[in-house]
Amino acid sequence: MQSIVDFILELDRLKSVTRKTRPLGLDRYENSAEHSWQIALLAASLAHLAEAPVDVDRVVGMLLVHDIGEIDTGDTMVYVEEGLAERKAAELACVTRIFGRLPDGPRAKFMALWQEFEDAVTPEARFAHAMDRAMPVLLNLANDGQSWRENGISHEKVVRRIGPPIQAGCPALWSYLEEKLEEAKRQGWFGAA
Amino acid sequence: MQSIVDFILELDRLKSVTRKTRPLGLDRYENSAEHSWQIALLAASLAHLAEAPVDVDRVVGMLLVHDIGEIDTGDTMVYVEEGLAERKAAELACVTRIFGRLPDGPRAKFMALWQEFEDAVTPEARFAHAMDRAMPVLLNLANDGQSWRENGISHEKVVRRIGPPIQAGCPALWSYLEEKLEEAKRQGWFGAA
Repeated sequence: MQSIVDFILELDRLKSVTRKTRPLGLDRYENSAEHSWQIALLAASLAHLAEAPVDVDRVVGMLLVHDIGEIDTGDTMVYVEEGLAERKAAELACVTRIFGRLPDGPRAKFMALWQEFEDAVTPEARFAHAMDRAMPVLLNLANDGQSWRENGISHEKVVRRIGPPIQAGCPALWSYLEEKLEEAKRQGWFGAA
Repeated sequence: MQSIVDFILELDRLKSVTRKTRPLGLDRYENSAEHSWQIALLAASLAHLAEAPVDVDRVVGMLLVHDIGEIDTGDTMVYVEEGLAERKAAELACVTRIFGRLPDGPRAKFMALWQEFEDAVTPEARFAHAMDRAMPVLLNLANDGQSWRENGISHEKVVRRIGPPIQAGCPALWSYLEEKLEEAKRQGWFGAA
């Protein structure tokens, strides 16, 4: 029991990993723990529109664990491409340590979910990635492009970087977003290209 | 699609519902969104120790939605007994409105999960309640009794109020906590009885 308690207390640290997006109406940045909660519910709401039939429970499981590696590395915006290999290695080391506190059953289960998300090959993992990519866009669209403006992210960069994974996991969501992103561009909510 | 987007943006408000417990090492109170994420993972880690065999995916689903009614009511400490009926009615009205934004499939699914948790009858719901009750205790035990001291909660009150539901859902966890709570009492981490 103590090892499971140590595990859950170490997870507490994800509440202090801040992202670049602000929750609507709040004067702070969101953290990776509350983000993980929200995209799990986004996935459960959109599963019927996944590109291929998915086991939604596995998608939810992946989304709940996918950011735990950030406990050591912090969150990095999807538009930052430098240092990716080092970051991925550090995240793997982090989850190996943290999941390693657990008994065999839950350890193997969490590790498999985390790895499936990283590999991004199964329909479940591709749908999960679409959810993870789409959520900050949805918040920005409701937030006058707050994190795009603050970080100088252009419309073209958003479309190039997040279009393909969202299209691959949830085409109906991408059709919706593509149009909204055009509208946001007309509003001047992006950084310069 | 727009109705699902409206739903997920309304959920954003749970990130501003604050609880009485502080995340470890942080100078703020935790919110109900990150709390929901954490107890979903606590459940997935402890499911093998549930009082009766449980479908862990349904437990996780319940825990992800169980606090959504607080978007209208705010969080209330488990030790506050006044106004319970009114609060429960307001929470029901809240989730009926918010889940009501969704298409039939996800709406019915979320509503059923929320209601199953409220009814607290199935093994899954009883285990889910045990997780929800245990998490603030685990944080307090790692936090020198922060929310007990701040709110004048006695050892006796904790044991009386949270002992039965944790025992009913996860007896092994209660055995562990009972001993730790005695230790915390010796440390003086509670309010006066």
